[in-house]
Amino acid sequence: MAMPHAEYTTCCSCTTWQWLKALPEKSWCNLVKVPKMVKKFGRDHPRRVIHSFKVGLALVLISILHHFRPSFYAFGDNIMWAVLTVVVVLEFSVGATLGKGLNRILATWLAGALGVATHCIANLSGEKGEAVLTPIFVFLIAGTVTLMRFSPQLKVRYDYGLIIFILTFCLVSLSDEKENHKMLEIAHERILTIIIGSFIAVMVSICICPVWIGEDLHNQIAGNIEKLGDFFEGFGDEYINNSENREAMHDRPFLNRYKSALSSKSSEETMAVLARWEPPHGRFKFRHPWEQYLKIGNLTRLCAYKIEALSVYLLRSDQSPYELRSNIQESCTTISSECGKALKESSMIIRQMTKSSMPNQHVSNAKIAIESLKSILRTNPWEGADFLDIIAISAMTSLLIDVVNCIDKICEAVDELASLAKFVPSQLLHRGTVQPISLHDDSVHVITIDEIAPRLD
Amino acid sequence: MAMPHAEYTTCCSCTTWQWLKALPEKSWCNLVKVPKMVKKFGRDHPRRVIHSFKVGLALVLISILHHFRPSFYAFGDNIMWAVLTVVVVLEFSVGATLGKGLNRILATWLAGALGVATHCIANLSGEKGEAVLTPIFVFLIAGTVTLMRFSPQLKVRYDYGLIIFILTFCLVSLSDEKENHKMLEIAHERILTIIIGSFIAVMVSICICPVWIGEDLHNQIAGNIEKLGDFFEGFGDEYINNSENREAMHDRPFLNRYKSALSSKSSEETMAVLARWEPPHGRFKFRHPWEQYLKIGNLTRLCAYKIEALSVYLLRSDQSPYELRSNIQESCTTISSECGKALKESSMIIRQMTKSSMPNQHVSNAKIAIESLKSILRTNPWEGADFLDIIAISAMTSLLIDVVNCIDKICEAVDELASLAKFVPSQLLHRGTVQPISLHDDSVHVITIDEIAPRLD
Repeated sequence: MAMPHAEYTTCCSCTTWQWLKALPEKSWCNLVKVPKMVKKFGRDHPRRVIHSFKVGLALVLISILHHFRPSFYAFGDNIMWAVLTVVVVLEFSVGATLGKGLNRILATWLAGALGVATHCIANLSGEKGEAVLTPIFVFLIAGTVTLMRFSPQLKVRYDYGLIIFILTFCLVSLSDEKENHKMLEIAHERILTIIIGSFIAVMVSICICPVWIGEDLHNQIAGNIEKLGDFFEGFGDEYINNSENREAMHDRPFLNRYKSALSSKSSEETMAVLARWEPPHGRFKFRHPWEQYLKIGNLTRLCAYKIEALSVYLLRSDQSPYELRSNIQESCTTISSECGKALKESSMIIRQMTKSSMPNQHVSNAKIAIESLKSILRTNPWEGADFLDIIAISAMTSLLIDVVNCIDKICEAVDELASLAKFVPSQLLHRGTVQPISLHDDSVHVITIDEIAPRLD
Repeated sequence: MAMPHAEYTTCCSCTTWQWLKALPEKSWCNLVKVPKMVKKFGRDHPRRVIHSFKVGLALVLISILHHFRPSFYAFGDNIMWAVLTVVVVLEFSVGATLGKGLNRILATWLAGALGVATHCIANLSGEKGEAVLTPIFVFLIAGTVTLMRFSPQLKVRYDYGLIIFILTFCLVSLSDEKENHKMLEIAHERILTIIIGSFIAVMVSICICPVWIGEDLHNQIAGNIEKLGDFFEGFGDEYINNSENREAMHDRPFLNRYKSALSSKSSEETMAVLARWEPPHGRFKFRHPWEQYLKIGNLTRLCAYKIEALSVYLLRSDQSPYELRSNIQESCTTISSECGKALKESSMIIRQMTKSSMPNQHVSNAKIAIESLKSILRTNPWEGADFLDIIAISAMTSLLIDVVNCIDKICEAVDELASLAKFVPSQLLHRGTVQPISLHDDSVHVITIDEIAPRLD
């Protein structure tokens, strides 16, 4: 009985030994891979690398400030408040950074003032009175503000400010400082440090390769609409016209891209809230209608749900005979491709910020194709065919007709955005106004050529 | 021209006066409303009110601790670290509180150690060397950890810890303390204060009406499946059997409840992450399969997308003649109601944590109904009817057949959860084991009656 046990021990220790022997070589291999991985990451996500650089830089700025101690920054120990502020406030996007910075400054100021006031009241009532009053004040204020954090209106924009309010109020109330004037001095120094910290964070965020969350939202909404357009452009070819190689469908990523629009609701809502903190920049003016993007996003999602239902028939199109499809092939291809074009034009309107009536024209074309499809159906084209075959193709047809309404609504919402955000009419593109030269008088004649190139940046 | 202006001024000032006169009365009215509003809020959201009370209480505990200063808590100024910890760590649910508390303690400890080490290295290289080395260390560590925050695996569970790591490292590196032993002492005091703060937060969170986020996730998943069940139970009556009062559909909330399942993805994912921090409690044992809930949630959402497509036909059912529907009425009603029952049984399995084969039986019934529907369709029941009428009803039929597969998958995933989480078989309910009494010997006989009541709490 001893043999197998001994064998096992030998085997185990020899494996450990081999593992230990191979360790330096393995570690070296892994270490060599690191720069390659970092390089690849940098190429794939340049904005993330830049953000990390910005955080490092902002903290270096604070440490330099701390080292040289200029006259306006004479409060040694309070350095921690500046560090705290920079680490917490400096976020990936300008909107988030500005929002957090303003929340922090305002909340600290308000809570500090309230804290000093309650501290004074507690002080007035003697040592015993203070011991009783302070916890009561802390309980009431902290409880009330925590309750306020549940309000959806406040949570969306001021949640961080409300936490900082509780924090600052408690710190001031529980401080050991007895003399009021010294307390005010400390409060004054702290708020100044927080302002300096927020200022550095905001400056670094805006001045070095700024990430505007509003622009991200703008691009995401346009991108999602484009992905739905991809689906419809592919759908006509793949489902309706194609009679073989069904397996290849899974390899075509453009038919699956719409899926990212299905669950983008919460990210879009967060982005719209943060975008409202951002100052006017580039193509985005003061009071840009961010709410309208959410409306477009919701309609896009509704359309994506319908595509999800349609795509089932794409996967199973080999089950319905090609002969049945051939009757309605032309109208369905037209509907699908016009839908695709309408969506892509709408996406272009958003991307280039130019007004255009092209999407509505494509929707009208799709509606005309629906009418011709209906007139084909009125002739009972599948008379005599098996109803079991008919129901799949009917379902596809019905869903395709239904989706046009949905796309019409998206185009309307994009039009609304174009007027709310005052997009430039694209008719101005390459428009030339030439006044004929008259020979009868000597007045100066003007030749105007307006060219507003589409902004593709 | 002066008249209207004068009139306007008079009018304006008189409005202001009236407004000012009405102000005290209005304010009083609003003030009277406040207790009523608070009462209503408390009735609607008792957990939120309790959470606010808990935050207040935790801070009062800190302030009492600060007032009496027991021997283990002898560090006056460091009170702020305990306050900071309680305010930031005490979250709505136990999972979030525990996760943040552990993250905070671990990150502070690690970053403190690394900070002291780099501080020592910087100190060794003289005053000038320190001025150069400290910013370099800060830049490298802060940049690297910020980059790590973008990693999806780390972000999900340790994002808060990574922020605290940067914060603590910078604070220690930039501190003015020259003597190493004193620095270690400060570090030791701070970490102890943070541990005390986290401990108070966790204790208050667990001991007073705990909100277990795992239980919330559990209930939300069961609730969403139940809502889909509501839809199918209503769908049979509303669409298939009913030939009139279409308008009433909008008034039936149970047909719209499924909508909340459409966009619950991100909230479910957050809940599953936080649930993993929670200790075993009540019916949830150690290593409860939280991941499986996400799988069920995703399948539920896929089913909800299909319902979204189906519901269009519910709204438009007046467009397809009742005569066409009457042919397939029975099978469709059966499919729909069996789907509803399967979903409701699945929801009950989750809620009561008992194994059951009932959902699979209902799915089998639905599949049998599909076969009988198909055999009806093979007889070409709508022969001669207008195809324009046929396509809507075919689409509904096709979608209804399609949805059964989806529900089958949900039931399978729920079964899988039942075996992973070792749910009790519901056959044990009211099972009695009675051993017959034999008269031939005097041995003791046992009558066992197992009763495991469904846990409805």
